[in-house]
Amino acid sequence: MDPATVVVDAAYERAFAAIDADPRNEMLVLLEGADGQGDGGAVLGCVQVTYIPGLGKGGAERALVEAVRIRADRRGGGLGRVLMDHTIERARSRGCALVQLTSNKRREDAHRFYGRLGFARSHDGFKLAL
Amino acid sequence: MDPATVVVDAAYERAFAAIDADPRNEMLVLLEGADGQGDGGAVLGCVQVTYIPGLGKGGAERALVEAVRIRADRRGGGLGRVLMDHTIERARSRGCALVQLTSNKRREDAHRFYGRLGFARSHDGFKLAL
Repeated sequence: MDPATVVVDAAYERAFAAIDADPRNEMLVLLEGADGQGDGGAVLGCVQVTYIPGLGKGGAERALVEAVRIRADRRGGGLGRVLMDHTIERARSRGCALVQLTSNKRREDAHRFYGRLGFARSHDGFKLAL
Repeated sequence: MDPATVVVDAAYERAFAAIDADPRNEMLVLLEGADGQGDGGAVLGCVQVTYIPGLGKGGAERALVEAVRIRADRRGGGLGRVLMDHTIERARSRGCALVQLTSNKRREDAHRFYGRLGFARSHDGFKLAL
């Protein structure tokens, strides 16, 4: 399907607007040509980051990473690494003490990827659907 | 130590002010007497909740729970359950699709507690200290 033909439900438009308007939420988008190669413009991947103030960690923020996505036909070529390296560096520049994320226990490939990036698999992630 | 004598570093005061000012962050505090018993007023526990907009879950928010704390001398008496039930109900009322949290893999007691509340231990939690 041509991405340009995707019909977006109004609820998703509202969610995107909420992310866009919130100084503690951002969607980082990896574009073709961002490395100076190619014509540029096509979306290759994205990630949502939430900067959370807290009373631990000396009062520093933590960066929560959600919804890491790389375009299906471009996986396995190191783009996830580019996207996550940028995300981590951005959190560091902002003064965050920690980057955190959860990954489904079945996704062993993703777990190896986060391990290579330096993440410790120290916690269990609990979810309650409402 | 008398809680009234705690000296709070300025960084923590700024972090608390940031939580307090952010409509997507809140600190829920469990007070003695909130159930109508006792004189009331003493802090028995607290939890921080962050409401995160996102492009999954039909555009609904998710509630991230951090820093669940019950006063050391009042643990084991069901106060954690009171605090978490209230947290979950508050997220539900707001229209959140999900409540999520992470817990250190060593804390098997906490994992049983979250299991009893209905949480699924479906994910691994990754942390990168900056």
